[in-house]
Amino acid sequence: MPDVTQLRAPDLTAWTCPAPLRDHPRVVMGHGGGGALSAELVQHIFAPAFGGEVLAQLGDSAAVSLGGTRLAFSTDSFVVRPLFFPGGSIGDLAVNGTVNDLAMSGARAAYLSCGFILEEGVEVAVVARVAEAMGAAARAAGVEVATGDTKVVDAGHGDGIYINTSGIGLIPAGVDLRPQRVVPGDVVIVSGDIGVHGVTIMSVREGLEFGVEIESDCAALGGLVEAMLAVTPDLHVLRDPTRGGLAAALNEIAAASGTGVVIQERGVPVPPTVANACAILGLDPLYVANEGKLVAFVPREHADAVLDAMRAHPRGAAATVIGEAVEAHPGMVVARTGLGGTRVIDLPIGEQLPRIC
Amino acid sequence: MPDVTQLRAPDLTAWTCPAPLRDHPRVVMGHGGGGALSAELVQHIFAPAFGGEVLAQLGDSAAVSLGGTRLAFSTDSFVVRPLFFPGGSIGDLAVNGTVNDLAMSGARAAYLSCGFILEEGVEVAVVARVAEAMGAAARAAGVEVATGDTKVVDAGHGDGIYINTSGIGLIPAGVDLRPQRVVPGDVVIVSGDIGVHGVTIMSVREGLEFGVEIESDCAALGGLVEAMLAVTPDLHVLRDPTRGGLAAALNEIAAASGTGVVIQERGVPVPPTVANACAILGLDPLYVANEGKLVAFVPREHADAVLDAMRAHPRGAAATVIGEAVEAHPGMVVARTGLGGTRVIDLPIGEQLPRIC
Repeated sequence: MPDVTQLRAPDLTAWTCPAPLRDHPRVVMGHGGGGALSAELVQHIFAPAFGGEVLAQLGDSAAVSLGGTRLAFSTDSFVVRPLFFPGGSIGDLAVNGTVNDLAMSGARAAYLSCGFILEEGVEVAVVARVAEAMGAAARAAGVEVATGDTKVVDAGHGDGIYINTSGIGLIPAGVDLRPQRVVPGDVVIVSGDIGVHGVTIMSVREGLEFGVEIESDCAALGGLVEAMLAVTPDLHVLRDPTRGGLAAALNEIAAASGTGVVIQERGVPVPPTVANACAILGLDPLYVANEGKLVAFVPREHADAVLDAMRAHPRGAAATVIGEAVEAHPGMVVARTGLGGTRVIDLPIGEQLPRIC
Repeated sequence: MPDVTQLRAPDLTAWTCPAPLRDHPRVVMGHGGGGALSAELVQHIFAPAFGGEVLAQLGDSAAVSLGGTRLAFSTDSFVVRPLFFPGGSIGDLAVNGTVNDLAMSGARAAYLSCGFILEEGVEVAVVARVAEAMGAAARAAGVEVATGDTKVVDAGHGDGIYINTSGIGLIPAGVDLRPQRVVPGDVVIVSGDIGVHGVTIMSVREGLEFGVEIESDCAALGGLVEAMLAVTPDLHVLRDPTRGGLAAALNEIAAASGTGVVIQERGVPVPPTVANACAILGLDPLYVANEGKLVAFVPREHADAVLDAMRAHPRGAAATVIGEAVEAHPGMVVARTGLGGTRVIDLPIGEQLPRIC
């Protein structure tokens, strides 16, 4: 039987792989990890192929203009394994993930699309439970699922349920959230404990128990962002540190803004459960995925007021300052350690734990 | 090893399957076929779970309003096998499929999102070729890929490349394309030969040769729709007859409009290659998928002018009238056969050939 995925393919030997990708002629799990390998695919394959100015901005969502209206537009596919976990399911992730990407542009999500890729043989009851979770998450986030599509693939060519959601929302007047707006002196704030989602998935997938029950932080951040923008529309950039964790989010901002970033390692809120799990597994919490947290770069003069507004919101009750943007070491993220030293926080290569979202 | 897709799932035994779905407690290929099984999933699982008024319209794309701007918003996932075929690739389908869904609302596609689900081990060169095809198709259709996402799943849980595209575009003033606007007397026009994409996929997948080379009709229809709307914005409904073919498209319109539809079977343009392949394989061309054709319900007074405009456009050169909307047999599609009889054209149950898009 021929390999039909290759049938009629153009002559691939005539294709010259861009240099940075030559170590990986085939896709590896890390290409989906939100780190350096993912960035290589985007920079050397997708961006040149697609062209276009909007994609080149590489934000969590695209800011586009249509009929005089400024919109945020974003997409995410969800392949998390297992489909259900403490604190949520692939359905909750699929709604909140895209709602949050839009929120990082300052937009309140208005409409979502939903594309299912179902594997032949998955129970209809499982599909129904996931759909119900999506509906509940959408109502909680105040967004409407407006359009959808369902494809089915043969058993052995999927993993139960994959979901893509895309979303659109209005960007309020005066809001312009981009890493390019970051300047030295900006204050770096995280909205709460980090690493919770990734450690939750790891614990259920690997059957590990860390003595304490842990639940994913999966949640919609549109309300928190609105509360922050009510203080001032002049926030500089927001990111939700999902794949690649806080480290990847800070590195992307440093690289795109051309400023340095310094964080106080002891100031980063890592709950004991996450710290213990990471110690056992040899992971760094800075690289573990979150699904209901954000990191903000805020002009220094507004930092106190924004922090107060965040702490007054349920999703930001544990918000805290973790660092600042600096002129030194442009494009680089450095942590001051508890011992008084410093260490460089690199962009992760791939993902410590694949398929966490 | 536990079945992690089920791990932590809510108690599924407590879930009551809606009656129409009880024959299929597990997902079968036909649930993705765009026919009756797909419709059951949407009506009994997704629509109740998601709620919302826009989804309930069940168009190829959703018409939504955002900041006073009327937008079309649509999503489609693409799981075609093989990835490359005569006349196109999964990349061409992924762009043109969503561009066409938007066009069926009368909207010119402005921005697309692109979500890849890559299988570990697929050649980066294959991904690059698909991305290049997407870029070329996007430029041809005048649409910009504005945002994207890449996930990687373990080998054995995908099939090389799956793609979701979503899209947004402006709906021109005065355009309101919905099956509910169809009235008896409307003229039914197809834009050209039917069944070409489905037969192409079948021929390469099954290694069949029908004596004549056949190429997919995969193409963007935005320009053709603009030419039609230039005659009059008062077209009633447009559909691109993809999965389930012309039969499914006509049935959806008949059901949603509450009118009957009569077509002249001999008037439906079926090219000899498609007719021969269907004869050999025992298929009905009315049920075979298209990827670059549309069916229009046009007020009788505008039908001649719209037909002329279609024939003057490269994508509608072979446009022809195939039937009309009638008061008789509301919700039902009937074909007058060459022998003077009639036969009912049912909504297909599933899909004759899975994974054609």
